[in-house]
Amino acid sequence: MKVLVFNCGSSSVKYQLYLMPDEKVIAKGAVQRIGEDLSEAIQSSNGSELKLEEHDENHDQALETIKKMLTHEEKGPLKSMKEIDACGHRVVHGGERFTGSIKIDAEIEDVIEEFIDLAPLHNPANLAGIKAVDHMMGDVPQVACFDTAFHQSIPKVAYLYALPYEMYTDFKIRKYGFHGISHRYVARRAAKMMGKEKYGVNLITCHLGSGSSITAIKDGKSIDTSMGLTPLEGLVMGTRTGDVDAAIIFHLKRKGYSVVDQEKIFNKKSGLLGISGISNDVRDLENHAAQGEKRAELALDIFAYKIKKYIGMYLGILNGCDGIVFTGGIGENGIIMRKRILEDMENLGIHLDNEKNSIKENIEREIHADDSNIKVFVIPTNEEKAIARDTFKIVTNGSI
Amino acid sequence: MKVLVFNCGSSSVKYQLYLMPDEKVIAKGAVQRIGEDLSEAIQSSNGSELKLEEHDENHDQALETIKKMLTHEEKGPLKSMKEIDACGHRVVHGGERFTGSIKIDAEIEDVIEEFIDLAPLHNPANLAGIKAVDHMMGDVPQVACFDTAFHQSIPKVAYLYALPYEMYTDFKIRKYGFHGISHRYVARRAAKMMGKEKYGVNLITCHLGSGSSITAIKDGKSIDTSMGLTPLEGLVMGTRTGDVDAAIIFHLKRKGYSVVDQEKIFNKKSGLLGISGISNDVRDLENHAAQGEKRAELALDIFAYKIKKYIGMYLGILNGCDGIVFTGGIGENGIIMRKRILEDMENLGIHLDNEKNSIKENIEREIHADDSNIKVFVIPTNEEKAIARDTFKIVTNGSI
Repeated sequence: MKVLVFNCGSSSVKYQLYLMPDEKVIAKGAVQRIGEDLSEAIQSSNGSELKLEEHDENHDQALETIKKMLTHEEKGPLKSMKEIDACGHRVVHGGERFTGSIKIDAEIEDVIEEFIDLAPLHNPANLAGIKAVDHMMGDVPQVACFDTAFHQSIPKVAYLYALPYEMYTDFKIRKYGFHGISHRYVARRAAKMMGKEKYGVNLITCHLGSGSSITAIKDGKSIDTSMGLTPLEGLVMGTRTGDVDAAIIFHLKRKGYSVVDQEKIFNKKSGLLGISGISNDVRDLENHAAQGEKRAELALDIFAYKIKKYIGMYLGILNGCDGIVFTGGIGENGIIMRKRILEDMENLGIHLDNEKNSIKENIEREIHADDSNIKVFVIPTNEEKAIARDTFKIVTNGSI
Repeated sequence: MKVLVFNCGSSSVKYQLYLMPDEKVIAKGAVQRIGEDLSEAIQSSNGSELKLEEHDENHDQALETIKKMLTHEEKGPLKSMKEIDACGHRVVHGGERFTGSIKIDAEIEDVIEEFIDLAPLHNPANLAGIKAVDHMMGDVPQVACFDTAFHQSIPKVAYLYALPYEMYTDFKIRKYGFHGISHRYVARRAAKMMGKEKYGVNLITCHLGSGSSITAIKDGKSIDTSMGLTPLEGLVMGTRTGDVDAAIIFHLKRKGYSVVDQEKIFNKKSGLLGISGISNDVRDLENHAAQGEKRAELALDIFAYKIKKYIGMYLGILNGCDGIVFTGGIGENGIIMRKRILEDMENLGIHLDNEKNSIKENIEREIHADDSNIKVFVIPTNEEKAIARDTFKIVTNGSI
């Protein structure tokens, strides 16, 4: 069975074509700069690269470009789009409705549209991708995998903000959490690596990339996570503030900053970029810090400190745990960063093996010392594979 | 030496008259409802109560009322205000300037006025109290004790928000922390109880009252605290949200809530009151919860959960600690609340003795089990005594 996995943003469509249940990637590619004068499309398949330049005005046109690439006479893996048996989509916001992946029909599309109110930057693009497949491929089965679904097990004590209760009942303001596909994927892998059942582990999973979040997992289920109503809350990110005193907004309003301007500043000009004034990228900042640039060093320190705080916090609510997992670009590759985060936590049972931590490998591995009570894992995430699996299972079995 | 200690709010002045260095309270009282039609003044001294009703328009007039009470022919402890040797004031915001208590002069008053920008609700009243003493008592020495001073040892990695760096340099937006007089006081008492030097202890101090905050103390110094630029950040409080996703404000703005309205909602209608819809008072809520009211129970659970999270967080940055201290109205009296907070943390070395925890006493005491790695203390706070001590030391020795 061939499953086409989509990750649609507002100006890009990324895709991977999977052969299932083999979990083999037949092709992967992306259309970037949708809506601009020149959209760039790139695909790799069976060792050959393909690049196209098109003018794709919207997601429907981007899908036409993807069709051209997948069925390209020379470099495409398919003769016809009819060979595709199912499509899987990453959908950012599933509100309180979706606790797992689900087969898409007209009603599901309506609900995803309804949640645009909660995820105005993401759900419209996800929905545009689904509708583009509807338009081009008719009745091919489609599955939605939600970033929020894994976190629907979070109890009310953890998801409710201390606002007037009506803010929850009237506007559905609560913690939802994101990156759930990734947190779930690495949690399941970690359980396997420990030889345990998926519901038999307590973990802290750190997904550290341009967006970062951390999740407390009890008995295999998310019980708390750092992102909130939106992805702004929690850890320091590339350009997002993470946690702040909300009163800063009230204070800056009195200084003349509009709410609209502040929303941009908090989301696009803060985080590592804001502190350092140099870059939103950890590797860049490590290079600058090595050259003695103090604000680069400070940004990295603050980034690590916040993660250390959350690890402690989740140890508190989990009453200790079995393992800590690092994933995402920074989590997988950030040798210095992982050390910054975990050093001086040995009294809590965390003891990194510096040699194991320093090995550069793109494989699942343990990096804790032998005497560490809490295991530490590096596990490359693979959201596309997780989506392909869910899609395959739902289309063949009707459920996961 | 007689020291008069003031805690001036916008509509109230509380005071205690101390005999130093004996630390004996000669009189205590308050003027409430300043600026309203009828101000209520009350004083207890040497076993006798005194009540007055006045119309006090401002802090100068309130001080006249206090003079009437302190020098009351029958029930006042003084013949003349000239018997007062020094005055000590709680001042909420000392910015980055003040790392300890300080003798007040014209320049210091100017700096306190400058920080009104950072504490618009508090510093004006503190300053009005200082000026009222200037006006009435001329050159009596006055000392300012800042809520922020104890937290000035917090390192940059902990006090800087991940905002554009200019927000710090241009507007001094950073974490300041509050309740420092109380956190310092109980930290010193806990060190004494452990037979250790004041700089020889790592502690987590929980000041839980109508406003609540929690501090991580390393080597006797504050290294992080839950309140931030303002007292809004951190724990759930009586009517304040504590930590929230800042993007909630952006979201609610789109729903039609003005920033001004939101500032009121977040500060005055949230917290325990907002969640429960019943009360901002833990005892009230415990009564309601005992009668099966679910939102009262939920509010208490969320309040405790947040404190548990911060205890874990601070264990993370302290790499474990020697003791946890409870103080403030809820911290000192909240038997059920302390149990809610600390249960299921035994894997982190915290083990409450339920019997010791259940004793109702207004004295400093230990409430941990014998096998608890981390000691747990209940220590009644006494900010007035701390202010009287600082004032006495500065006036007699020139420094603390």
